[in-house]
Amino acid sequence: MANFLSFLIPQDKKFFRLFEKASANLLATSRALVEMVNTASADKRKELIREIEHLEHIGDNLTHETLNELSTNFITPFDREDIHAMVASLDDVVDFIHGAAKRIDLYKLTEIPPSMCKLADLVLQGAQELHAAVSNLKDIKKPELIREACVKINSIENHADDIFDMAIAQLFDEEKDAIMLIKTKEVLSALETATDKCEDAANAISSMIVKYS
Amino acid sequence: MANFLSFLIPQDKKFFRLFEKASANLLATSRALVEMVNTASADKRKELIREIEHLEHIGDNLTHETLNELSTNFITPFDREDIHAMVASLDDVVDFIHGAAKRIDLYKLTEIPPSMCKLADLVLQGAQELHAAVSNLKDIKKPELIREACVKINSIENHADDIFDMAIAQLFDEEKDAIMLIKTKEVLSALETATDKCEDAANAISSMIVKYS
Amino acid sequence: MANFLSFLIPQDKKFFRLFEKASANLLATSRALVEMVNTASADKRKELIREIEHLEHIGDNLTHETLNELSTNFITPFDREDIHAMVASLDDVVDFIHGAAKRIDLYKLTEIPPSMCKLADLVLQGAQELHAAVSNLKDIKKPELIREACVKINSIENHADDIFDMAIAQLFDEEKDAIMLIKTKEVLSALETATDKCEDAANAISSMIVKYS
Repeated sequence: MANFLSFLIPQDKKFFRLFEKASANLLATSRALVEMVNTASADKRKELIREIEHLEHIGDNLTHETLNELSTNFITPFDREDIHAMVASLDDVVDFIHGAAKRIDLYKLTEIPPSMCKLADLVLQGAQELHAAVSNLKDIKKPELIREACVKINSIENHADDIFDMAIAQLFDEEKDAIMLIKTKEVLSALETATDKCEDAANAISSMIVKYS
Repeated sequence: MANFLSFLIPQDKKFFRLFEKASANLLATSRALVEMVNTASADKRKELIREIEHLEHIGDNLTHETLNELSTNFITPFDREDIHAMVASLDDVVDFIHGAAKRIDLYKLTEIPPSMCKLADLVLQGAQELHAAVSNLKDIKKPELIREACVKINSIENHADDIFDMAIAQLFDEEKDAIMLIKTKEVLSALETATDKCEDAANAISSMIVKYS
Repeated sequence: MANFLSFLIPQDKKFFRLFEKASANLLATSRALVEMVNTASADKRKELIREIEHLEHIGDNLTHETLNELSTNFITPFDREDIHAMVASLDDVVDFIHGAAKRIDLYKLTEIPPSMCKLADLVLQGAQELHAAVSNLKDIKKPELIREACVKINSIENHADDIFDMAIAQLFDEEKDAIMLIKTKEVLSALETATDKCEDAANAISSMIVKYS
C-alpha cells in the first residue's frame, strides 16, 4: 500500500504485529515442548516446563491485548469474529501444550513413550505452519502461501489423529497398570487436542481468505 | 412463496438444502450407530464403524460448505449466529457418535452393556427429531412442528442424562476392573454428550423461531 | 439517570434484574456446595445435592430468559456478545458446581478430602466477587468496584489452579486404588473448571468495562 494511504488503516500494523507475536510465541512454546519430551535430564525437563509456563503467560497477555484492540477499534483488518477465533485458537494451542507439560511434571512421568514424542513433533509442525500463515496475513491478496500452510495443518491434524488412535489402542492393549494408563492417556489427549486447536486456527484463517483475498 | 418473487432470496434454497443434507447425514450416522451397538457380528461392527467414519467426513464437508456460504452471502435466511450454532452443533453430534464408535473399536469392547444401547437409541431419537425440525425450517412461519420437535429433543436429553447417571453409578458400583471401567465410561460419556449437542442444535433452532416466526 | 430519560432505555432494568438474579443464583448454588462438602451427615448431603439440582434448573431458566431478551431487543445495555459470554459463563459455573455435586453423589464419595473443601471455598469466593461485579454493572461509569472484583476473581482462579495441581500430584502419589483416584480426580476437575468459568465471566465483564466505562 502506498505510504500516503497508510493513515487509513493505522491500526492494521498493530494487529499484524500482535498476530505475529502470538504465533511466534506458540512456535517458541512448541519448540520447548519438543525439547522437553526428548531430554533425558530431569533438571532440563523441569527448566523447560518452567519456560513453557512462562511462555503461556506471555501468550495470555498477547491474547488479552489483541482482544482489547478488537473491542476498542472500529476498523479491523479482517472480520472481528475470525480474528477472535484465530487468536483464541492460538491461545488454546499454547494452553494445551502447557497442559501436557504440566501433567508430565505433576504425574512424575519419567519414561516418555515414542507416541508422545511423535505427537509433540506434530504440534511443532503445526505451529510452524501456523506461524507461516499468520506472518503472511498482511499479504492476503496473494493467499497461496497461507492456503498452502492451512492445507498442511489439516493433514498434520489427520496424522496426529492416527498416531493418537494407535497409541491409545496400544496403551489399552499393553498397559496393565490403570493409574499409569490414565497418566499417559491424559498427556496424549492434551497433545492431540493441541493439534485440533491448530486446525481451528487454520479454519479461522481460511475464513479470512474466503472473505478478503 | 410466489415464483415471481423467488429471485429475492435466491440463496435460501441453497441454505435449506445444505441444512437438510446435514440433518439427513446425522440421521444416517445415528442409524449406523444403533445398528453397530446391536450387532453380534464383529465383522459387521467393523464395517459399520467404517461407515460412520465415512459419514463423519461427509458431515465435515457439509459443515465447511455451509460456513463458506455463510461467509460469502450477505443475505441469509436466519441470523448468521443461529445458523452457525445450529450447523456446528449438528456437526458436533456426528463427531461424538463417531467418537463413541471409534472408542468401541480402539478399546476392543466386545460386550455392549444395555445402557449403551439405550443411549444410542436416544441419540437416534434426537437425530430423528432434529431432522424433522430442520426439514420444517423453510416453513418457519408455521413453527408448531419445529417447536414440538425441539421440546421432544429437550426431553430426550433429560432422559439420556438419567440413563447416563444410573449407568455410571452402576459402573462404579459393580465394575472392579479400572481399565474396563474407563473404557465403558468414555463410550457412555461420548453418547451422552451427543444428546447434549442435539439439545444445542435445538436451542439454536428455537432462537430462529423466536426471531423469525 | 434522570427519570424523564428512562424511557430511552426501557429494557435496561429488565436486563440488570436478570443479570443480578443469575449471579445471586450462582451465589446460592456455591453456598449449598460449600455446605455440602463440609457436612458430616449423609442425609444433609443428599438434601443439599437436591437443592443444587433445583438451583441449576432455576439458572437454566434465567439463562434462557436472558438470551430470549437478547434475541428480541434491538437495544441492549452492553454489547450482545459480551452479555452472551457473561450469561453463558455464569450458567457454566452453576453447571460445573452441579456436576461436582452429582459426582460426589453418584460415586458415593463419603470422605471429602481437604483439597475438595478448599476448591469449593474458592468457588464460593469467586461467586461472591462475581455477584458484586454484576450488581455494580448498572454503575459502569464508575467501574472501580467492578474492576476490583474482576482482579480478585483472576487471583482466585490462579489460587484454585495451584490447589488443584497440588491435589492431583498428591492423589497420583498416594492413591493406589485407581477407581477411587478417578472419582476424586473428576470431582476436583469439575470444581477447578468452575473457577475457570468464573474467570470467563469476569473476562466478559472486563470487556464491558473497556467499552462502556
